[in-house]
Amino acid sequence: MSFDKLDKLGTKLHALSHALSILGADEATHMAPGGGEARAEAMSVLSGMHHRESVAPEIGDWLDAAEQEDLSDDQKAAVREWRRRYVGLTCLPPEFVERQTRASMRCEQLWRDLRARNDWAGFAPVLQEVVELERERAARRGEVLGLSPYDALIEMYDPGSRVEQIAPVFDELKTFLVDFVPRALEVQEKRREKAPTRPLSGNYPIEKQRELGLAMMAAVGFDLTRGSLSVSHHPFCGGVPTDVRITTRYRSDEFLSSLMGTLHETGHALYEQNLPKEWAHWPLGEARGMSMHESQSLFVEKQIGRNPAFWHWALPLVEQHLGESWSQDEILDHVHHVERGLIRVDADEVTYPLHVILRFEIEQELIGGTLEVTDLPEAWDERMKRYLGLSTIDSPKDGPMQDVHWPSSAFGYFPSYTLGAMMAAQQWNAIKREIPDLDDQLSRGEFEAVNDWRRKHIWSQASRWSTPELIERATGEPLNARHFREHLEERYG
Amino acid sequence: MSFDKLDKLGTKLHALSHALSILGADEATHMAPGGGEARAEAMSVLSGMHHRESVAPEIGDWLDAAEQEDLSDDQKAAVREWRRRYVGLTCLPPEFVERQTRASMRCEQLWRDLRARNDWAGFAPVLQEVVELERERAARRGEVLGLSPYDALIEMYDPGSRVEQIAPVFDELKTFLVDFVPRALEVQEKRREKAPTRPLSGNYPIEKQRELGLAMMAAVGFDLTRGSLSVSHHPFCGGVPTDVRITTRYRSDEFLSSLMGTLHETGHALYEQNLPKEWAHWPLGEARGMSMHESQSLFVEKQIGRNPAFWHWALPLVEQHLGESWSQDEILDHVHHVERGLIRVDADEVTYPLHVILRFEIEQELIGGTLEVTDLPEAWDERMKRYLGLSTIDSPKDGPMQDVHWPSSAFGYFPSYTLGAMMAAQQWNAIKREIPDLDDQLSRGEFEAVNDWRRKHIWSQASRWSTPELIERATGEPLNARHFREHLEERYG
Repeated sequence: MSFDKLDKLGTKLHALSHALSILGADEATHMAPGGGEARAEAMSVLSGMHHRESVAPEIGDWLDAAEQEDLSDDQKAAVREWRRRYVGLTCLPPEFVERQTRASMRCEQLWRDLRARNDWAGFAPVLQEVVELERERAARRGEVLGLSPYDALIEMYDPGSRVEQIAPVFDELKTFLVDFVPRALEVQEKRREKAPTRPLSGNYPIEKQRELGLAMMAAVGFDLTRGSLSVSHHPFCGGVPTDVRITTRYRSDEFLSSLMGTLHETGHALYEQNLPKEWAHWPLGEARGMSMHESQSLFVEKQIGRNPAFWHWALPLVEQHLGESWSQDEILDHVHHVERGLIRVDADEVTYPLHVILRFEIEQELIGGTLEVTDLPEAWDERMKRYLGLSTIDSPKDGPMQDVHWPSSAFGYFPSYTLGAMMAAQQWNAIKREIPDLDDQLSRGEFEAVNDWRRKHIWSQASRWSTPELIERATGEPLNARHFREHLEERYG
Repeated sequence: MSFDKLDKLGTKLHALSHALSILGADEATHMAPGGGEARAEAMSVLSGMHHRESVAPEIGDWLDAAEQEDLSDDQKAAVREWRRRYVGLTCLPPEFVERQTRASMRCEQLWRDLRARNDWAGFAPVLQEVVELERERAARRGEVLGLSPYDALIEMYDPGSRVEQIAPVFDELKTFLVDFVPRALEVQEKRREKAPTRPLSGNYPIEKQRELGLAMMAAVGFDLTRGSLSVSHHPFCGGVPTDVRITTRYRSDEFLSSLMGTLHETGHALYEQNLPKEWAHWPLGEARGMSMHESQSLFVEKQIGRNPAFWHWALPLVEQHLGESWSQDEILDHVHHVERGLIRVDADEVTYPLHVILRFEIEQELIGGTLEVTDLPEAWDERMKRYLGLSTIDSPKDGPMQDVHWPSSAFGYFPSYTLGAMMAAQQWNAIKREIPDLDDQLSRGEFEAVNDWRRKHIWSQASRWSTPELIERATGEPLNARHFREHLEERYG
């Protein structure tokens, strides 16, 4: 049976992926500094082996044949998802992929240096080349997949999501936020007039912060027998579902940034740890995509981790580990801090979507050819002023040079962040309808019911459905901005 | 050129080896406990890929062709060593390899349980099957390689070493030790009558022991930018030459066992860290074999680490890290402790060779067919009584069930341990002839000159020569038991 041939190849590809995932996580956590060159060489060779085995022409024949075989519904879904991956991997000529990889690697390397020097003039022509190749990729992929060029890029990160469905939701959210951000800031100011902020400063030994982080991870559902917490410069969730490696970084003068980061990565980890084991070596068994993954991390970080009920339970744990007593109002003042800023990764949950929507709008114009790289700083500045009342015109490094995504040819990725935030709120709303005492459960540190819902409706579904299908099946309705809007109004309004 | 084809394949095999080495070290140090099954599956698939690529028939053609190409001396040596590996990997029919692998895996698994229960009657028939297959392997390998069956097994671990050369040296050593062990014990007793042993006990925080271990590793030459020290249940040296992972385990009630273990693994690590980089992806660039590797670990642990001059330098370091002052006599009383015992891995450097020689002699009879498994307990007991004055007849778990080697089909491995000890002493003697103030250097914590010698004569030579050639080229004479004998007499006589 061709299905069995795919199954066998899946085992082989899975072993290579396992090695690459662990080698990647190890590189950022335990590798000796001098080991980098040999590690990069080994990973590049193994990636090449994985790619060559993944695009072999006989896979197309096996998929054709398997589609005619007498298969169970699960098996049919497995073949369908593999087909989707295979088409995605083989729809571009190898010489084009090489050309684009070279250009974006060069651009990303130059970007690190040029951004540090705020050198837009040096950066623009290099980015221009990347944008031109990305336009070509979008057109080529779009032709094969029967999608518009920009949709064909989104499809790489978020299968099934389309501009047609994202744009109106983002528009609604934007209109709301442009009005809501000033209101939230006003609410915050009034709150602080009554009760001034208690400074988040002290001396918190890293080992104690680590113990606190581990205790919270375990409480919200992280299986410590199938994963671990380490330190790295950039926090991430990596490894493999049976051994999920999450990382954080510590500051000894405050504990909240590491803790919230750990909760965020724990959200990613829960998704990975709860994927269906029987399909682990098939594309079907992997997490759905970037936006659904982000919805899981944001669910734990924002819906749970910034929920007042959660802190009712968490504050005694903080006191137990760090020996410091905070009132709920004092900690929520930090946990719910809102601030207009230039930098997306530093933004809070109220302002963050405006950063994303700005990029989503500009990306479409760049890929569509209605905006050129030379006009980027003005386009960015104009939107920043409108959406957040801030100007970046004098500082391109905080404007269009801010993120690694564009230099590395990852157009179409940005929407995932805010789609994830909206889907997290929509899931929260759906759970709350099923479990009316959800906040009470949180305030007692009980996460079983909420995790059971997520296991049943999201985690166990892996890559069986497209993103829009999955969110609709899980919550009973298509993506709806209302839930995120109401969440923000309730928490910050 | 066929040489270039080999070079390209070497890069691919090297990437797979890199992954397997790091995954293996990671498994014992950082892996989550629940990750074992998926890790074993991934490593088994990757090992299979490595094996299949290593025995491909076209490699034989490439080697034939490369031998006719116009190559430098280095390149010729590289092809020669690859040929040796290739013959070793392909000289047995795959169905025989599978049969033997299955039998020894089964035996090793049963052994873990049966040894714990001291169940010789249950173990003997399972071992019998392994011995019969090992006889067949020895005969088959011997025929292809033109060696006697037992030599054909030794060749797997120690290229070029032969019974003809090992047996007389071991005989000489055995005769000496049977007489010397009682003398050494008497010397020890008299010493302790004058100055009673200061108990090695206290409360030593693991973090401080770790810092002490790292300080000693760095001092004796370990490059901490290209390696690290972790904790594992069984200490080992693993990883890759650019990122050597050594491990130890700690007891909080004494510090010496972890420290000496760390020095031992550091010896292995120095060999790996100083192999020639330009041949890293060729068999030529790997360490020579088991006995030479053991000579490097024992060099650091015994020749350096148990040298009185070393402790002149080391004791202030111990005091600095552990806050405890020891006199040289007090610490050497522990460092030079001699004791007759049943267990090889617990033996000191005086009694250890008798454990090995016993196994070497019995192995030859087992492979030669002059001894059967059923007669093993008596044969073992008879020699234990003669060599060490101890009986194991009532406790087969401390006799022929003691080691993992035989259940796992590793006949021919044991001699490496004592060959390593002898070669370490012989290297020490050669260095001392070149550097007369060697002890003074040690007592000042200066290890550059001794490492320069080893880098030039051993490490940089990698797999260019057979073991006997390498030791003769390095020290100016063939393996000679006299150096080890004199070493023991000087230290323990």
